[in-house]
Amino acid sequence: MIRVLFAGGAFRWGQYEEPLKQAFASEGLKVDLALDHAPEGTDYIIYAPNKDFSDFAAFTNVKLVQSLWAGVEGIVTNKSLTQPLARMVDIGLTEGMVEWVTGHVLRHHLGMDRHIVNPNHDWVFDPAPLARSRTVGILGLGELGAACAQALAALKFNVLGWSRRQKEVPGVTCLAGSEGLNDALERSDILVLLLPLTSETENLIDARAMARMPKGAVIINPGRGPLIDDDALLAALDVGQIGHATLDVFRTEPLPKDHPFWPHPNVTVTPHIASETRAETASLVVADNIRRIETGEKPRFLVDRSAGY
Amino acid sequence: MIRVLFAGGAFRWGQYEEPLKQAFASEGLKVDLALDHAPEGTDYIIYAPNKDFSDFAAFTNVKLVQSLWAGVEGIVTNKSLTQPLARMVDIGLTEGMVEWVTGHVLRHHLGMDRHIVNPNHDWVFDPAPLARSRTVGILGLGELGAACAQALAALKFNVLGWSRRQKEVPGVTCLAGSEGLNDALERSDILVLLLPLTSETENLIDARAMARMPKGAVIINPGRGPLIDDDALLAALDVGQIGHATLDVFRTEPLPKDHPFWPHPNVTVTPHIASETRAETASLVVADNIRRIETGEKPRFLVDRSAGY
Repeated sequence: MIRVLFAGGAFRWGQYEEPLKQAFASEGLKVDLALDHAPEGTDYIIYAPNKDFSDFAAFTNVKLVQSLWAGVEGIVTNKSLTQPLARMVDIGLTEGMVEWVTGHVLRHHLGMDRHIVNPNHDWVFDPAPLARSRTVGILGLGELGAACAQALAALKFNVLGWSRRQKEVPGVTCLAGSEGLNDALERSDILVLLLPLTSETENLIDARAMARMPKGAVIINPGRGPLIDDDALLAALDVGQIGHATLDVFRTEPLPKDHPFWPHPNVTVTPHIASETRAETASLVVADNIRRIETGEKPRFLVDRSAGY
Repeated sequence: MIRVLFAGGAFRWGQYEEPLKQAFASEGLKVDLALDHAPEGTDYIIYAPNKDFSDFAAFTNVKLVQSLWAGVEGIVTNKSLTQPLARMVDIGLTEGMVEWVTGHVLRHHLGMDRHIVNPNHDWVFDPAPLARSRTVGILGLGELGAACAQALAALKFNVLGWSRRQKEVPGVTCLAGSEGLNDALERSDILVLLLPLTSETENLIDARAMARMPKGAVIINPGRGPLIDDDALLAALDVGQIGHATLDVFRTEPLPKDHPFWPHPNVTVTPHIASETRAETASLVVADNIRRIETGEKPRFLVDRSAGY
C-alpha cells in the first residue's frame, strides 16, 4: 500500500479526493490517500501552499513532493523541503492559458475595447491590420509560453519567443540571453509575460525595458505579478509609452481596492483567472508520476532547485 | 494587349492600381488597365458595386467579371450582368475573418467584458471552463466559415459546422439540411453566422430559431445583416434567451443613430470591420484568374447563378 499525504489544504480536498482516487485506480496503484499520515511512513506528498502545512522535515522517506501548482517560487524557498519536487504541468492549465492569452492578444490586436465601450455610438470604419503584420513577443518558453506561442503562430502572428537559454519552438522565432531580450522588447507590439519568478526575473519589466518597446505597445501579464515594476508601468502608461496593460497577477492578491491599477483607463485587471489547475486533469499527472517512480522510471517535471523552477 | 476595365469605383482605384499592375506583371500578362475602355473592346471587368457603373449589357466580349467582394448578393441580381462572374476569395479577407471571429468567440468564452468594464473594481475569481467543454456552431462552411471552424477546432472548441449541402471539414462535426440546422441551434453555446445572403437564408435566425438555442447563448454575426430578424433578436435578448449579440453587419449601414441595437446592454456593434478585401492579396487573385482564362484554364470561384453565390 502506497501512503500518499494530501497536503494541499482542506478546501481543495473536496475537489481532488475523487479525481485522485480514480486516477490512482486507472494506473493500477494501491494507494492509501489521506489528509494525515505518520511522517516517516509517508511515501508521497501532494502539495499546494496552505496555512496548515509547511514543515517537510519529518517526512524522511518521501520519494516525491508533487506540487499542484505550476509556479513553485513560493515552494522552493521552503528550507525544510529537501525531497524531490515536481511542478504541475496540467493539460487543463496549459489549455486554459492558451485560451486566455490568445483571447487577450486578439482583443488588443483587433482593438475590441473601443466597440465594447462606445457610449457615443460612433461608427468608425477601422479594420485591424492582419495578424501577419503584428509582432507578439512571449517572454518565457516553458510549457505555457511555448503552447501560447504556437497557438498565436497558427493564427499567423509574427511570434518572437524569448527564454534564458536558447530553445526551439516550431513556427516561432526563438531568442535568448540579454541581447535576445532587448531584441524581443524592441520588436514586440504586444508582449506576453510567462516567465517563472526568480531573482533574475523579478522587475525584469522595469522603466528601461519599457522604454525599449515600440511606443504604445501592449503588455499582457498572466505570469507572475513581480515580473513588472508597478510604478514604472504606471509612469509608462501615463505618457503613452505603454498603450495598455492587461494584468492577471499582482504582488498582492486580491488587488487592494485602493491600487492605482483599478481606476487606470489603460489597465485591465483580471482576477488571477488566466488559468488554473483542474482537478480532473492534474490528478492524472499526479498518478502518472507516482506510477513512474514505483516502476523505476524517472518522474516528469522535476524542479531544478538551482534555477528555481 | 489585354484590356481590363476597373469598375470598382474611383475611390478604390488609388488602392488597387499599383497592386493590380504588379500582380499582372508577375503573372507575365500584358494588360491595359484603365477606368474607361470601349465596351466591345473590353476583355475583363474588375467590379465592386458603385454609383458610377451598373450596366454590363454593352460589354459583349467580356470573358469574366471579377468581383472584389466575397458576398455577391447585390451583384447577381443585376440583370444586365450575363457574363461569367467570379467571387473574390482573398487570403487577406479569410485571415482577417478568422482573427475577428476567433477573437470574439474567445471574448465571449472567457467572459472578458466583465473585466474590461468593472466600475466597482470587483475581484471575483471566475475562471472560464475549458474550450473543450464549449460548443461553437458555425452556420456556413464556405471559404470563410470553414477557415473559422478549423481555427476554433485548433483551440479545442467543440465545433459544429452547418451548411445547406453536406460538407467535410477536418476536426469539425459537419451538419447539413434542416434537421442538421436544428441540431446546430440546439447545441451551440456560441453561434457564428457566415452564410451567404439568399432568399433561403434571409431571416434564418428568427424567433423560432433563437427559441431552439440554449438559454443565454451568444450570437456573433460577421456575415450579412438580414440573416437575422432584428426585432426577434431584440425580444430574445430582452428575456435572456440570447445572452449577447455581437454584430458586424446590418440591414442599413452605418447603423442608424436611433437603432435600438446601439444602446442595448447586451449588443456589441462593430462597424463592418470583421474583414475586408485587401488590395495586395486580392490583386493576386484577379491576375491569377485572368491568366487562367488566357491560358485556357478554368477560372476559380465562379458564381453559381442559380444558387446565388
